[in-house]
Amino acid sequence: MLTQADNRYMTETGPGTPMGEMFRRFWFPAFMAHELPEADGAPKRVRLLGEDLVAFRQTDGQVGLVANACPHRGASMFFGRNEENGLRCVYHGWKFDLDGSCVDMPNEPAESNFKHKIRIQSYAARERGGVVWAYMGPPALMGELPELEWSFVPAENIYIGRRLQECNYLQCIDGGIDSSHVSFLHSSAASHRAGTTDAKDPMAVDKHPHFEIAETDYGLLIGARRITAEGKHYWRMHQFMAPFFQMIPAAVGGPIAGHVWVPIDDNSTWAWSMTWDPEKPLTAERRASLESGAGIHARVDADNRPFANRDNDYLIDREAQRTTSYTGIFGIGEQDMAVQESMGSINNRTIEHLGSADTAIIFMRRRLLKLARELERGIEPLAAQRHELFRVRSLQLFLEPGEAWVEACQEPMIARSPYLPARA
Amino acid sequence: MLTQADNRYMTETGPGTPMGEMFRRFWFPAFMAHELPEADGAPKRVRLLGEDLVAFRQTDGQVGLVANACPHRGASMFFGRNEENGLRCVYHGWKFDLDGSCVDMPNEPAESNFKHKIRIQSYAARERGGVVWAYMGPPALMGELPELEWSFVPAENIYIGRRLQECNYLQCIDGGIDSSHVSFLHSSAASHRAGTTDAKDPMAVDKHPHFEIAETDYGLLIGARRITAEGKHYWRMHQFMAPFFQMIPAAVGGPIAGHVWVPIDDNSTWAWSMTWDPEKPLTAERRASLESGAGIHARVDADNRPFANRDNDYLIDREAQRTTSYTGIFGIGEQDMAVQESMGSINNRTIEHLGSADTAIIFMRRRLLKLARELERGIEPLAAQRHELFRVRSLQLFLEPGEAWVEACQEPMIARSPYLPARA
Amino acid sequence: MLTQADNRYMTETGPGTPMGEMFRRFWFPAFMAHELPEADGAPKRVRLLGEDLVAFRQTDGQVGLVANACPHRGASMFFGRNEENGLRCVYHGWKFDLDGSCVDMPNEPAESNFKHKIRIQSYAARERGGVVWAYMGPPALMGELPELEWSFVPAENIYIGRRLQECNYLQCIDGGIDSSHVSFLHSSAASHRAGTTDAKDPMAVDKHPHFEIAETDYGLLIGARRITAEGKHYWRMHQFMAPFFQMIPAAVGGPIAGHVWVPIDDNSTWAWSMTWDPEKPLTAERRASLESGAGIHARVDADNRPFANRDNDYLIDREAQRTTSYTGIFGIGEQDMAVQESMGSINNRTIEHLGSADTAIIFMRRRLLKLARELERGIEPLAAQRHELFRVRSLQLFLEPGEAWVEACQEPMIARSPYLPARA
Repeated sequence: MLTQADNRYMTETGPGTPMGEMFRRFWFPAFMAHELPEADGAPKRVRLLGEDLVAFRQTDGQVGLVANACPHRGASMFFGRNEENGLRCVYHGWKFDLDGSCVDMPNEPAESNFKHKIRIQSYAARERGGVVWAYMGPPALMGELPELEWSFVPAENIYIGRRLQECNYLQCIDGGIDSSHVSFLHSSAASHRAGTTDAKDPMAVDKHPHFEIAETDYGLLIGARRITAEGKHYWRMHQFMAPFFQMIPAAVGGPIAGHVWVPIDDNSTWAWSMTWDPEKPLTAERRASLESGAGIHARVDADNRPFANRDNDYLIDREAQRTTSYTGIFGIGEQDMAVQESMGSINNRTIEHLGSADTAIIFMRRRLLKLARELERGIEPLAAQRHELFRVRSLQLFLEPGEAWVEACQEPMIARSPYLPARA
Repeated sequence: MLTQADNRYMTETGPGTPMGEMFRRFWFPAFMAHELPEADGAPKRVRLLGEDLVAFRQTDGQVGLVANACPHRGASMFFGRNEENGLRCVYHGWKFDLDGSCVDMPNEPAESNFKHKIRIQSYAARERGGVVWAYMGPPALMGELPELEWSFVPAENIYIGRRLQECNYLQCIDGGIDSSHVSFLHSSAASHRAGTTDAKDPMAVDKHPHFEIAETDYGLLIGARRITAEGKHYWRMHQFMAPFFQMIPAAVGGPIAGHVWVPIDDNSTWAWSMTWDPEKPLTAERRASLESGAGIHARVDADNRPFANRDNDYLIDREAQRTTSYTGIFGIGEQDMAVQESMGSINNRTIEHLGSADTAIIFMRRRLLKLARELERGIEPLAAQRHELFRVRSLQLFLEPGEAWVEACQEPMIARSPYLPARA
Repeated sequence: MLTQADNRYMTETGPGTPMGEMFRRFWFPAFMAHELPEADGAPKRVRLLGEDLVAFRQTDGQVGLVANACPHRGASMFFGRNEENGLRCVYHGWKFDLDGSCVDMPNEPAESNFKHKIRIQSYAARERGGVVWAYMGPPALMGELPELEWSFVPAENIYIGRRLQECNYLQCIDGGIDSSHVSFLHSSAASHRAGTTDAKDPMAVDKHPHFEIAETDYGLLIGARRITAEGKHYWRMHQFMAPFFQMIPAAVGGPIAGHVWVPIDDNSTWAWSMTWDPEKPLTAERRASLESGAGIHARVDADNRPFANRDNDYLIDREAQRTTSYTGIFGIGEQDMAVQESMGSINNRTIEHLGSADTAIIFMRRRLLKLARELERGIEPLAAQRHELFRVRSLQLFLEPGEAWVEACQEPMIARSPYLPARA
């Protein structure tokens, strides 16, 4: 449960809000690089953290990210001419480079000094791993991109999807690090029927995981322990990395999956999902499976809105719900969306009732609150400057009772992809 | 005319509003029983008095009515699993019975006491006359269902319709008890042309009825007197029953019609219409006529929205308006909707001008205001506990000048259907 | 740049706002006369300056303009019966004449005096030049229609269009009198390429016009000077006439074009465009050209919404933008709309940066502010009573350096159409 004040504090991310300012200290994914395919091609509308922006790929291939509104009289730069390393407003020909300088102002006399007084708001953009990343904070505090392993692997090793989620980002993180729901929301109907539960599936055998949380410099290491039919300890370990990155428990040696929850504004979120193999290409079978939509990668339309969405009740199939699937909704991504969006645009956390299964959520909220409150007092978020902290993996492990999970996962959680750059 | 404060007081019905609290002392229709056909079938979204609810028919056939939001973290119970006499949230498997108790919480340890601290908001629901009725008030004050005659007759004796009306409930009652508009809104063009008026139709002969109101324990008995061509007194008597039930004048021995105006929220209303014969089945001809849409029963789509609605100007036919119909709009229900919705979501009653023909409206508003204000002072509405008060009928009668209408209608207005239960 | 207070002051035009009250001192176009073709035909909804109105053509052919809401209980007069020189509400038959008097109240007793106390808000409407004009100010201050030359010429001399613009009126005027944008927004791509600029086109040769403004009794005479390849002074002269009329520079002897920017409400505007020849019919070629949509007359649907609009990004063609057209948007009207609407419903003028090329805009805003502020102090706007002031034309002229432009344009700017009535 949050107070109304804290719920508001946590869910507002626009310019000038404490949480929004903290988020602006970090680099985060804005859109896929292939969405701006050509130099001097059509600009693209981008909305991030409540700000309307326009992205363009300039003549030399670099991506610019500027305010939607021309500083002259507010016409949209989306209609602009993308030419000769700059974006030119079509209203009066004012041209801006990707640093936001006005480099041409042809409707004023050549001798005018006016153009040197004009800037458009611009933000840094960089490409890595097929993604255009944005940094919307103070230029003087700009760090490096987080060294997430997935952002270095070649394209054949990774599958990246992005879907529009029509609710606040915090509902996405609440759900994303919530290991407890997996035994329900993403389960089969059979796993809940007496006599039909698969004894080999620890998620079905133990539906009330025990949580333990380790605080880290980058965020949280979240351990959820289930007891298997044989009495072993099955640990699922999520990584939560400030401000809104995460990884889902992965088998040792297998592909890893993660999410990034980027606020479009306070009522909608870009839900990024990525599945990658740190060492080798994804197999054709794996890729086909990811494309099928059965897993975390929702099937989306050209605007990245899922085909199954709140307007069609996520295509819920009540007969399937009775017989085969716990929800009757197809796709892990769609199942998550259904419950998270059904809370409304901004969940009213003043009336929630958190139990022991919500321990990770409680820690994550405390961490975000702490980071935002510290920044209000002038303390910068550490991880924004320590890009090497993000060189971690998530994990699932079977341990003997009594074995220390944090210790056991230290070594296998180190990111060791051969594609990672050598450490400085 | 109402002050702005009174107009707001009367039109707000959400939780905690004085009018809304008074309404919550009464049972009222929520939806048709056949809309939840099967035990353990799909739940149904229901919005009443500004509250989002989910209805489900549980294994034993009883209907439950619970808050849309799961008390855990706010996911919608609409996606829930309806199984074994309870509704289970698909997010973490929390299960609730129709009393709102949490009867299973499988994501917490078996020994946890947490589930006993959790309740979902639930409301009582009962079935009678093919209708599911809801009671949204304090359980300790819950009375019996009102003994409306129509709710006891067998299905072959009654025709029930429900349409979405896109305005506040008060506009519906204002219009529903307004006998004066019948000579205009629901009339033929001919009835207003000199020389073509039917001398046998008292509604055409006398277009300015004289109103007399009798206060009753259940609400108001409204008499509207017209003078016939022969000088007789034609009385049309409406019943207004707290908080939003009514009956339309009926011929002695013929079918009776009524309405219930149930606020969905402050901007939309479920407009229920029912036509019933207290003693015998409706004839096939009568049923065909009711289904035709010419009368009070609007033709609606699968969501109960009329085909003729504000988006298509109620399919007004201007040529028909010039030649045959006063409005050019087909259907009495649609005619009422057209004018009532055209006032806007909430009519600005600070600029209205009520005349003598609006006498019933003035009395009805005073009554509702009185009931709500009394409740604010701790005086409970009498009729909420006196279900037998609703055993009345409406009436139309031809009397001689000087005959006392209230006395004349007492006997024929008593509900005497053989299907009514014996009085306690 | 405007302060937030001034931006609000200038953009609010509803009843009781200072700018709205000033606007209400003037006659302005409401809709085309042919939109109400028949006497006693269907009424028409009209929204002007934030007020919902209903227009009707009564039996004698005169146009009435009354409030949408019946003064009785607020039902819409749009559904009314238009009969025998009055509009009758279908709810209870109250009938109003075009002066707003209640001339029949058949649901009250014949002897009742109530009807004499009831009026509907009505506004004066007149027809001239194929247009129905409205006056929404105090009746005692009603002047004559402005003697705009175009409003007197026969139908074969003029082409009139009206398009819905989905933004505040002030963005329309800002753009309408902004001569500087013509060298960009409405230009060809070639005119900006080195070596391909047409030396005969002064708009391409000199893209940073010098502005001079002459204050007039009706508004502003705006001169924008460009230097031609031969060193001549090319003057383009706009007329801005209070409160929201304007003319576009026209060649001597050629057709003239103008606009009227009528607020529907604060978020949308009727953008009127007219092209007329003061003396002779438009040629078939000219008319075909105007109908093509290439010029200021946007192609619109039956509701006067342009086919190219903000929902489809004005059908921008990025390939055309690269190669032939500066914007890739077809049509001068659509180009203007694109940039003006892209500023949002109400442009945030607190962050704009006006240069010397925006001189006319600065003067226009000062004038409107002055007129509204004077009216707040009781000083009526002069032009509202001086209809003959509008007998002017716009102009473009080539002068020698040193020639005085204001003097040079006086004579050719006098409206001398043979269709103008003789001066009083």
